[in-house]
Amino acid sequence: MKSFGTGIATGSMSAIVAEMMQNLAARSRAMLRRGHDGNRRRADGAEFDLVSAGESLLSRRGEASGVVLARLMLDAYARQAPADKRGFLLALADGFGANRELIEEALGTYRDNPNPAAIKALHHATEPRRQELMRRLNLAPGGTAALVRMREDTLGALTACPELKPLDDDFVHLFSSWFNRGFLQLKPIDWTTSASILEKIIRYEAVHAITDWQDLRNRLEPADRRCFGFFHPQLADEPLIFVEVALTRGMSEAIAPLLDYDHEVVAPETATTAVFYSISNTQKGLAGVSFGNFLIKQVVEDLKLALPNLETFVTLSPVPGFAHWLARERKEESSWIDDATRAALALLDEPDWHKDAEKTEMLRPVLVAAAARYYILAKRGDGRPIDPVARFHLGNGARLERINFLGDISAKGLSQSHGLLVNYLYALDDIEKNHELFFEHAEIATGAQIRKMLRDEAAAPSRANGTTLVNAG
Amino acid sequence: MKSFGTGIATGSMSAIVAEMMQNLAARSRAMLRRGHDGNRRRADGAEFDLVSAGESLLSRRGEASGVVLARLMLDAYARQAPADKRGFLLALADGFGANRELIEEALGTYRDNPNPAAIKALHHATEPRRQELMRRLNLAPGGTAALVRMREDTLGALTACPELKPLDDDFVHLFSSWFNRGFLQLKPIDWTTSASILEKIIRYEAVHAITDWQDLRNRLEPADRRCFGFFHPQLADEPLIFVEVALTRGMSEAIAPLLDYDHEVVAPETATTAVFYSISNTQKGLAGVSFGNFLIKQVVEDLKLALPNLETFVTLSPVPGFAHWLARERKEESSWIDDATRAALALLDEPDWHKDAEKTEMLRPVLVAAAARYYILAKRGDGRPIDPVARFHLGNGARLERINFLGDISAKGLSQSHGLLVNYLYALDDIEKNHELFFEHAEIATGAQIRKMLRDEAAAPSRANGTTLVNAG
Amino acid sequence: MKSFGTGIATGSMSAIVAEMMQNLAARSRAMLRRGHDGNRRRADGAEFDLVSAGESLLSRRGEASGVVLARLMLDAYARQAPADKRGFLLALADGFGANRELIEEALGTYRDNPNPAAIKALHHATEPRRQELMRRLNLAPGGTAALVRMREDTLGALTACPELKPLDDDFVHLFSSWFNRGFLQLKPIDWTTSASILEKIIRYEAVHAITDWQDLRNRLEPADRRCFGFFHPQLADEPLIFVEVALTRGMSEAIAPLLDYDHEVVAPETATTAVFYSISNTQKGLAGVSFGNFLIKQVVEDLKLALPNLETFVTLSPVPGFAHWLARERKEESSWIDDATRAALALLDEPDWHKDAEKTEMLRPVLVAAAARYYILAKRGDGRPIDPVARFHLGNGARLERINFLGDISAKGLSQSHGLLVNYLYALDDIEKNHELFFEHAEIATGAQIRKMLRDEAAAPSRANGTTLVNAG
Amino acid sequence: MKSFGTGIATGSMSAIVAEMMQNLAARSRAMLRRGHDGNRRRADGAEFDLVSAGESLLSRRGEASGVVLARLMLDAYARQAPADKRGFLLALADGFGANRELIEEALGTYRDNPNPAAIKALHHATEPRRQELMRRLNLAPGGTAALVRMREDTLGALTACPELKPLDDDFVHLFSSWFNRGFLQLKPIDWTTSASILEKIIRYEAVHAITDWQDLRNRLEPADRRCFGFFHPQLADEPLIFVEVALTRGMSEAIAPLLDYDHEVVAPETATTAVFYSISNTQKGLAGVSFGNFLIKQVVEDLKLALPNLETFVTLSPVPGFAHWLARERKEESSWIDDATRAALALLDEPDWHKDAEKTEMLRPVLVAAAARYYILAKRGDGRPIDPVARFHLGNGARLERINFLGDISAKGLSQSHGLLVNYLYALDDIEKNHELFFEHAEIATGAQIRKMLRDEAAAPSRANGTTLVNAG
Repeated sequence: MKSFGTGIATGSMSAIVAEMMQNLAARSRAMLRRGHDGNRRRADGAEFDLVSAGESLLSRRGEASGVVLARLMLDAYARQAPADKRGFLLALADGFGANRELIEEALGTYRDNPNPAAIKALHHATEPRRQELMRRLNLAPGGTAALVRMREDTLGALTACPELKPLDDDFVHLFSSWFNRGFLQLKPIDWTTSASILEKIIRYEAVHAITDWQDLRNRLEPADRRCFGFFHPQLADEPLIFVEVALTRGMSEAIAPLLDYDHEVVAPETATTAVFYSISNTQKGLAGVSFGNFLIKQVVEDLKLALPNLETFVTLSPVPGFAHWLARERKEESSWIDDATRAALALLDEPDWHKDAEKTEMLRPVLVAAAARYYILAKRGDGRPIDPVARFHLGNGARLERINFLGDISAKGLSQSHGLLVNYLYALDDIEKNHELFFEHAEIATGAQIRKMLRDEAAAPSRANGTTLVNAG
Repeated sequence: MKSFGTGIATGSMSAIVAEMMQNLAARSRAMLRRGHDGNRRRADGAEFDLVSAGESLLSRRGEASGVVLARLMLDAYARQAPADKRGFLLALADGFGANRELIEEALGTYRDNPNPAAIKALHHATEPRRQELMRRLNLAPGGTAALVRMREDTLGALTACPELKPLDDDFVHLFSSWFNRGFLQLKPIDWTTSASILEKIIRYEAVHAITDWQDLRNRLEPADRRCFGFFHPQLADEPLIFVEVALTRGMSEAIAPLLDYDHEVVAPETATTAVFYSISNTQKGLAGVSFGNFLIKQVVEDLKLALPNLETFVTLSPVPGFAHWLARERKEESSWIDDATRAALALLDEPDWHKDAEKTEMLRPVLVAAAARYYILAKRGDGRPIDPVARFHLGNGARLERINFLGDISAKGLSQSHGLLVNYLYALDDIEKNHELFFEHAEIATGAQIRKMLRDEAAAPSRANGTTLVNAG
Repeated sequence: MKSFGTGIATGSMSAIVAEMMQNLAARSRAMLRRGHDGNRRRADGAEFDLVSAGESLLSRRGEASGVVLARLMLDAYARQAPADKRGFLLALADGFGANRELIEEALGTYRDNPNPAAIKALHHATEPRRQELMRRLNLAPGGTAALVRMREDTLGALTACPELKPLDDDFVHLFSSWFNRGFLQLKPIDWTTSASILEKIIRYEAVHAITDWQDLRNRLEPADRRCFGFFHPQLADEPLIFVEVALTRGMSEAIAPLLDYDHEVVAPETATTAVFYSISNTQKGLAGVSFGNFLIKQVVEDLKLALPNLETFVTLSPVPGFAHWLARERKEESSWIDDATRAALALLDEPDWHKDAEKTEMLRPVLVAAAARYYILAKRGDGRPIDPVARFHLGNGARLERINFLGDISAKGLSQSHGLLVNYLYALDDIEKNHELFFEHAEIATGAQIRKMLRDEAAAPSRANGTTLVNAG
Repeated sequence: MKSFGTGIATGSMSAIVAEMMQNLAARSRAMLRRGHDGNRRRADGAEFDLVSAGESLLSRRGEASGVVLARLMLDAYARQAPADKRGFLLALADGFGANRELIEEALGTYRDNPNPAAIKALHHATEPRRQELMRRLNLAPGGTAALVRMREDTLGALTACPELKPLDDDFVHLFSSWFNRGFLQLKPIDWTTSASILEKIIRYEAVHAITDWQDLRNRLEPADRRCFGFFHPQLADEPLIFVEVALTRGMSEAIAPLLDYDHEVVAPETATTAVFYSISNTQKGLAGVSFGNFLIKQVVEDLKLALPNLETFVTLSPVPGFAHWLARERKEESSWIDDATRAALALLDEPDWHKDAEKTEMLRPVLVAAAARYYILAKRGDGRPIDPVARFHLGNGARLERINFLGDISAKGLSQSHGLLVNYLYALDDIEKNHELFFEHAEIATGAQIRKMLRDEAAAPSRANGTTLVNAG
C-alpha cells in the first residue's frame, strides 16, 4: 500500500473511510431506492442512482457525509459504461438546471423592488443547480480530476448531443475559477522529473511526436534544452500544458536539427535565443480554459532572469491549416494565382518533391509568398486568422517573424503545411501593443521579412490586398 | 535576494516584470487619467484611481496585461490609508454591482422565451461585476492572499457600513469555491516545522494562549502531542485552521495537566484517547468559509490509521457563553433556580472561590447541572444552542459527553465559563446520525453523564423541560 | 545552466570557482613544472602531471587550495586515455606507498620503548601515503563518485597488473568507512521516482534484464510491487544496490508470472508473502564493500511495519553455477549419478526439452535432487558453497527453502541453471542463528522440502554424504 | 509516534527491530555474562558489560547482529552515569589499543622481508582495535551522533585523564574522514528553517549571544541578512558550524547597528559588502575537525554568484585575547609604553570610560595602536598570533584590514577586548597567497590602515619592531 507511508496525507484512502463508505453506501443506496425512486426498477441501472444521489447531495446539509457521497458518486460514474455516462450527463444538463419556481419567485420580488438584494436573489435563482452539485462533488478526494474527466466526456458527446452545451458552459465557468492562473505552479521538467510525469509528456506531446524515452531524454537532458509546465495542486502528476525550449545561437528555421540526437550542445550561458518549438495542452477536459499565454510569458521571464544573455524569444511553429487552404485556393483559381505560380504549385502534387533540389528552388518563393498571403488573407468571420496557431501566438502579442521553407519535412509537416514552419517572435517591449492591436483592430504584427514580401506582392498590381499590417519589427 | 534561488518559481518578482510593470504602470495611469476620469482632480487621490483601474481591468481582453494591472491594483490598495481602502470597498459595493441595462435586456429575452439560454443570460447579467473583477485580481501573484486581506477589511467595516454586505457576500461566494476542501492540504505541524509557520501558531492560537516559544514547543515536541493544520497552496506559509491534540490514556477533564511542561509523556502506541484541546481559525478574511469540520474528521481518520489503538476521540472545549447566560438567569430568577441553587451560585461572586475546597464542593453539582441546562435550554431563534462551540461540534456530529468542573481555572476560563470545560465525543459510528438529527430536528446528542443528570433534574417536578435528547452513548 | 537555480548548493560550479580554478590551474601547472619535475619533457604527458599534482596535494597545508587542486586532478584523470589512467594508478600503487624512512625511524623509536605513542607513530608511518591523498581528493565536489570510478578502473586492470592490489585494498579500506551502513539511506523506488534514477535501474538490473521502460513500469507501478535501494548522500542519483519485491499470496516458484504484464494484482494488505526476486549491485567500484545484507533486512523490517499481514519473506533466486557444475559431474561420472539419473540428465542435451511435458516430468525429480546435492556438495576451499547467490543469502542467515523446477525458462535461466530457481527464506527468528552456524561451522540451513529430499537420497546407500544440515524449518 | 509516518526511512525504530533487540539483548547479556565475565559481580555495573560487548562486537562476523549490538551498546552508554562513562572511555583507551602479539608477529615478517605486504600487515597490526570498534558502532542508527557525543565526553575528561589522549586521537582520525568536506552540505538558514534547527542556532551562537527568538528572527528575516551552515547527512538537524552575514553598503565597524531591530534594510541587490559578523562551531565533539575555512569560502562564492554586485567580503570579529595581553604589558611596563600611553591606558581602569567622550578620544589612538602591536607582537611559540580568531582568519588567507574602536561595547566586548572589533578582509585574489605566506613564513597580511599605523609607530625610534608585514592591500 504505497500511500501508507504518507500517513497524514489528505485524501489517503484509510480503513476508516473505507468502512464509513461501505456503511454510507449501503444506507445511501437504500435511502435512494426507498426515498427517491422507489418505483424504479433495478434494471434502470446505475445512472438513475447517480441522479438520485446528485439530488441527495444537493439537499444535504452535512458536509462530512457530503464528502463520502461525492466520492461514491464519482466512483460510480467512473465505473459506468459510456452510454450510462452520457445518460447522466444529459440528466445533469436537463434536470439540474435552475429552479423555475425560484426564478419566478425572484422575478416577482425584483419587479416589486429591483434593489441589490433582489438582483442577488435573481442571480442565485438563475444559477443552474449543477454548479453547486459540481462544487460539492469537488469535495471528494480526487474530485477535481474526476470532474475534468467528466467534462472530457461532455465535450466528446457535444456534437451528438448539443443539449449538453449548458452543462459544458458550467464546467468552463467553474474551471476558469479553479484553474485561475493564480492557482497554477510553473515547474521545470527535466530528466530528474518523476517518470509518472514524463510518461505524460510523451503521451501528450501534440506537435512533434516523441517516439520513445530516448527521444524524450534528448529533449530534456542536454544542457541547451528546457521544458516547463503548469501544474495544479489538485492534479499533481498532470502537467496542464507544457512547452519545450531549445537554447540556440540564432533563430531556428527547421525542426530536425533541434531534435537531432547528435546536435552540438550550446553552452547555455552563451545562447542568445530561446526557441519554443513545441507547446501542448494535455487535458481535453480543460479545453477553453486558457493558460498557454501565461505559460509562455512566465517562461520568457524566468529564462531571461536565469540567462541574462538571452535576447530573442521565438517560436518554431507549424502552419496547420495551410495545405488545406492552399488546395482550396488552387481549386478556386483565386486571382492571386498567376500562371507562373500555378505551375510552381503544381509541383506540390509530385511525390517526394521536397527531395528534389530543382523543384524545391522553384517552389521556395512561391510557397513562402502563399503562406504570407495565407496569414493575411485567410480569416474567420471575426476577422482573425483561420490558423489556430497564429491566433494563439498573435493573440498573445507575438509577431509573425519569418516563414521557413522546408522547416518540417516529416510526413505530418508535409501533408498539413507543405513543410513550412514559422517563427513567432515574442519581443518583450511590443507584446502588450501587439496584443491590443490584434484584439481591438484585428491587426497582425509582422516582422521585416514578411512585410517586405507583402510589399513586393502589393507592388504587383494584381496582387494588392487591403490588410493592415503592423510594423512590429 | 532570497527569491533568487528559486529562479523558476511562479510569481517571482523578476527584473523583467519590474520593468514591464513600470512601463505599464506609467501607461496605465496615463491612460486611466486621460481616458476614464480625465476631469478628476489629482486631489481625489488614490481610491479613484483604483476604481478606474478596476473598470480598466474588467474591460481588457489582454490576459497578460491583466496580470500586471491586477498586481498594480493590489499593491496600490495595500499601500492605502484605511479610509481610502474603505472608500474603494464602498465603490466596489456600490459601483461594481450587476449592470442594470443588461438585466433589463435579459429580462426582456426571458419574458419572450424562458428557455435555458435566456436563464443563463439572466444569470450572467445579474452577477455583480465585482465577482469577475475579483477573479481577475486573483491572477496576480499573491492575489489570493491580498483578496483575503481585502475581505478582512470589508468585515471590519461591515458594522459601520452595512452597505458593504453584498460585497462581503461575493467574497464568501468566491472563497467557498477557491477554498473548497478539495483544494486544502492537511499537514502535520511539529517542532521541525518552519519558524515562519510556527510563529503564526503562536499568534493565532485563540483558545489557550501560547505564551512563548517554550510553551509552543511543549505543545508540539513531546511524543504524545500532535498538531495539524489545513493549508492552501496559494497561502503556503499560512495555516488556515489548526488543531492541537494530546494523546492520553483517558478523557482529559482539565487543561492545565495537558499544558504542564512536566507532564509524564505517554508512549503514543499505548494511548487510547486523542484529546482535541484547541482548534483555531487564523484568517479573519475567511470567516464563514467553513473547514473546521473537515479538519477534525480528517485528523481523526489519520490518527486512527497511524495509531490503531486509539479508541476515543474527544475534545476538551470551553463553554464561552455560560457565565453570561447564567448571570442573566440569576438576575431574571428563572424558575429552575430554587433557593438552594441560588445560595450555591452566590458563591461565584466571591473572589477566589475556586481555591476554597468547601465552596467548590458546594458549587460542583449546582454548576454542572446549570451547564447541562445551559446546553439544553439556551437556544437561538433557530432552535440551536447559543453556545458557538456547541453548535460547531454538535453540528459536526459529536455528542456532548461530559461537563468538567474546574477544568480551566485560568482568568479567562473563570470569567467566561466559571471554570467549566466540556468534552465533545466524536464517535465514528454516530457522527452521521448525530449530525442529521441536529440539523433536521435540532436534537442534541448527549452522553450518559449528561442524560443521567438531566433525568434527575427532570424527576424534580419544577425542573422539567421538553427538550429532546438523543441517546448517543 | 541547470545548476543555476540551486544557487547556494555545495559544489555548484560557479564563475568564481571557475576563475579561481583557471588561475590556480595556471599557477599549479607552472609550479608543478618548475618545482617538481622541471626536467620532464612535455611528451611525458598528463600522467606525470597527475603524479606531481598528487605530491603537491599531499604536501600542501592550504585546505582551500587543496579543494581546487583535487578538482583539477580528478578532472584531468577523467579526461585521460585508458593507458594514461592505468599509468597513474600504477604510480599510486608504486610511488604513494608508505614512507620507508619514516617506518625505519618509527621502528627505532618502538624498539626503544614500545609504548602506545610509538605504536601510533608506527601505525602512521606504515599507512600508504595514497590513503591521505584519496582523502584529500575527496574534498573536491563530486570527489567520492570520481574515486569510485577510479577504483573501477583499478579493478578492471587488476588481472593484468596484480601490482595494483595494494591500491585496491586501500580503496576498499576507505570506502568501507565512507559507505558505512550508517551513512546509507534506504529509499523506495517507484514510478514517481526521477527518470535519471530509473534509467539506472534498467541499466544495472543484473538478474532478470529489464527490456524497456514498459517492463520497468510493470515492476514498479502495480500495487503489489515494491523496489528499494540504498543511496549515499554524495552519489545522490545513483542507487548503490536495489531489490525488487513482489507481494503475493504464496511463495512464488517461477519468475515469469511475476513479470507478466497482465498478472492479477494482489491488494497489498491481503498479501502474505514478500518475494525478493531480484537484487543488483550497481557500482563496480564498490565491489567488496558489502551492504546487500543490510538492504534485505531493512526492507524486511520496513515491509513488516507497513504491512503487518506479511508473514513470509522469501527470495526467488537463480542458481548461477548449477549447469556448469552438473556438466562437470556428468563428465566425471560422479558416483551419485546412477544409470537412471544419467539417462534422465541426457534429456538436457535435447533442444527445447523444457517444452516437452514427457521430458520435463522425467527430469523434474532428477534435476531437483541434483540441485540439492549441488548446494550440499559443491563447496569451495573454505567449506562454503561455490554458488555465490547461496553464499550471499545463507551468509545473511536465510535458509534454502525450496528448489523450483522450470522456474526460469529464459535463455539465460536454461543455460546457467537448467531453468531452476530457488527460494531462500528469511525467517526473522532464525536469521541470527543460521548466520552464526553458517560462519562458525559452515552449516547450511534448509527447509523441509530440501531435508526430505536429502534424507531420501541418503537412504539410498550409494548416495550418502556427510554434510551437516541445519533443521531450519 | 512521530517517526511513524516516515515508514520506510532508514533507522526508524520498528516493532520488529524492537523485538529483535529485546531477544538479542537478552541473549547478548546472557552470553556476555556467561562467556566473558561470568564471575563479575552485578555491582560492577554496566561499564563492564560495555567492555565485554565491545569485545563481542569486534569478534563477530555477523554484520546484521552487529547493528543490533552496536545499538544496544550506544544506548547503554548514553544511560550511564558520568563516572561509568569515563570508566568505559578509559577501558577503550587502555584495553582496545593495538594487539601487541600481532605487532610482534608483523614486525618479524617485516624484518624478514620489508615488502608492501609486510608494511600493510604492520599497519594493520598497529591500528588500535578501538578504531574498528568505532566503525562498527557507527553501523547503528544514530551511531555517528552518539560517537560525536562520546568524543565530547572524552574531551571533557582529557585534562583529568591524559591517558585518554590516544582515544581522542582516534576519534579525530575517524571524524576527519567521516566529516570530510566532500560529505558536508551547505544550507541557508532563514526564518523558514525548521524550529528544531533554529533553536540550535540560538543555543550555539558563541560570538554575540542571541537573546531570544525575536533576536534570532532579526538576524535571519530581514532582506539584508543571511545565515549559512554546514550539515552532515547523519546529523540532519544539527548545523556543524554556521556563519551570520549582514549585507551592507560599506565595511561595518561596530556590531550594535547590525543587531539593531530598527536598522534600515538594504536592498540586497544594492549591497556592496558582505559582513561575516559571527561564526560559531556547534559540536564540541568535533573540535579539531576543521571546516570553518571551507564554510567561509563557500559562502563567499555563493553570495558572489547570487549577488554579483558584492565586492567586499569582510568579517567583523572580536579580539578575544587583547585585554588580557594588554594588562600584562602594562604590568610588565613593556618598552613600547611611554608615559603618554601609560596615562591614556590608565583610563581603561575607570568605570564606564566608554561613555565619556573626552576619555574615549584620548584612548582611541592609543588603544588602536596597541591592538595593532598585539597582532604583530603577541605570538605563540610557532610564531603565529596568540589571538585564536586571528589565527583562524589569517590562516584562511584573509588579511587584517582595520581595527575598530568601540566596535562592541557589550559587557563581554569591553572586558575581553576593551570594546575593539576588527575586520578581516577576504580578497578573493589574495587568499591563496596570504594563506601560503602565513603558513610558510608566519607573515601577516595587513591592510593599508594597519600598515600606516605601524609605519608611524616604527618612525618613532623607541617603538620599532622587526615583524614582517605583507602588503596585502
